[in-house]
Amino acid sequence: MQIALTGAASGIGAATVGRLKAAGHHVTAFDIAEPAGVDRWLPVDLSDMDAIADATAQVAGPFDALILNAGLPPRADNAVELLTVNVFGLMAAARALEPKLAPGASIVATASRAGEHWRQNLPQVKALMGLTGPAALPDFVAANQIDPLRAYCLSKEAVVVWTLRQTERLLAKNMRANCVSPSAVDTPILGDFKAALGERAAHSLARVGRAGQPDEIAALIAFLAGPESGWVRGQNVTVDGGMTAMALCDELGLG
Amino acid sequence: MQIALTGAASGIGAATVGRLKAAGHHVTAFDIAEPAGVDRWLPVDLSDMDAIADATAQVAGPFDALILNAGLPPRADNAVELLTVNVFGLMAAARALEPKLAPGASIVATASRAGEHWRQNLPQVKALMGLTGPAALPDFVAANQIDPLRAYCLSKEAVVVWTLRQTERLLAKNMRANCVSPSAVDTPILGDFKAALGERAAHSLARVGRAGQPDEIAALIAFLAGPESGWVRGQNVTVDGGMTAMALCDELGLG
Repeated sequence: MQIALTGAASGIGAATVGRLKAAGHHVTAFDIAEPAGVDRWLPVDLSDMDAIADATAQVAGPFDALILNAGLPPRADNAVELLTVNVFGLMAAARALEPKLAPGASIVATASRAGEHWRQNLPQVKALMGLTGPAALPDFVAANQIDPLRAYCLSKEAVVVWTLRQTERLLAKNMRANCVSPSAVDTPILGDFKAALGERAAHSLARVGRAGQPDEIAALIAFLAGPESGWVRGQNVTVDGGMTAMALCDELGLG
Repeated sequence: MQIALTGAASGIGAATVGRLKAAGHHVTAFDIAEPAGVDRWLPVDLSDMDAIADATAQVAGPFDALILNAGLPPRADNAVELLTVNVFGLMAAARALEPKLAPGASIVATASRAGEHWRQNLPQVKALMGLTGPAALPDFVAANQIDPLRAYCLSKEAVVVWTLRQTERLLAKNMRANCVSPSAVDTPILGDFKAALGERAAHSLARVGRAGQPDEIAALIAFLAGPESGWVRGQNVTVDGGMTAMALCDELGLG
């Protein structure tokens, strides 16, 4: 298969590249940093909508799968930049590359367990997705008092909602979209999450025994990207070693 | 891998056997009817708890995966029998076979989109799962005025809850459980669902264009049964061609 991937240089993206290449696929990567082992690298700053338009214009496709994995973790004062990359960069890349997808193509986005409360927070998600573009983000972030951790959760809630929203439109084009929701994964940004979440992260990690490995997430992404998962559409699949299920059992009194 | 499977003679189970055998696995099947192509068939009436105990006692394992697929559709006056097979039969088979699972083993249960409202109906699900056994079902069904369609939905809600509940206990044994939720699938029982659901089924089917094929569900079951999905635990994965996602978009105003 021909596969396009954003965020390929480290973490889950790098592990996904490794898996896809081992399976004999051709990988075109969009990343600000140079990824190892891809067939083609388009250098692009995914917080820059013009740069995304330029980079995506350089590829012809047709791609059998599009993996939207690029994303920033919560860091000091990065709410605007984070929402720019994780939401507007993702939507811009998807919009630009969709015309270059083959019939039957699969889109897989990387969401997160951090987005699990998307339903409760739907009004804010809708407001975010209704903004005219990233230029409106500074005012939105200030008006809603969105700190970096909330920005991260909101960005992943938006990825889940974006995925749902594509279902009917893509069905008409014989395409589909799904997303994956990992929790703590052993990547270069795990430290950022531990710092942002504190005790909550430590408790979940202790309960499941270890962080996830990037390749364990990549395995699910590869499955969803390929034809074997063709009837799975518009879904958010959690891949977290059981953290979410155990927390839900606690919440609902399922001892 | 060595795989044990309930409900192997038709529909999704038969397609799963085909996939597993094509991949070189050894399949032991529990079914009242003789399945094609399995390595070993244990004839068993899955509404009879004693028969389940006898049949499971005849196998040694160790099994790398246990697929709990057997289930009845809603039919005239079958609420008690349906709940017996779909819930108590499933739990009895799981309990009896768990000691025969290998370290790292994966359990995959067949739930259904019909169980999607498990959270709203949790009190009734808990009451059902708290019954001492299937002998208590006639009174439970009468007291709760459970017709066959509600019995089917309740049984699949119970499968989702049962799956969640296994997560922490199985984690301690280095095992895991997940379930799959298909919607309309082109199997011998599709007619029963069309009769029970009427217009609702027709609308969903028309929107997605066709029923799912058994092999499209089997592909997800095989993925969840194998080591590639090892970090997916306690999850319910919907596989319905997008029906649930589109209905959710309608419900939440995600146009």
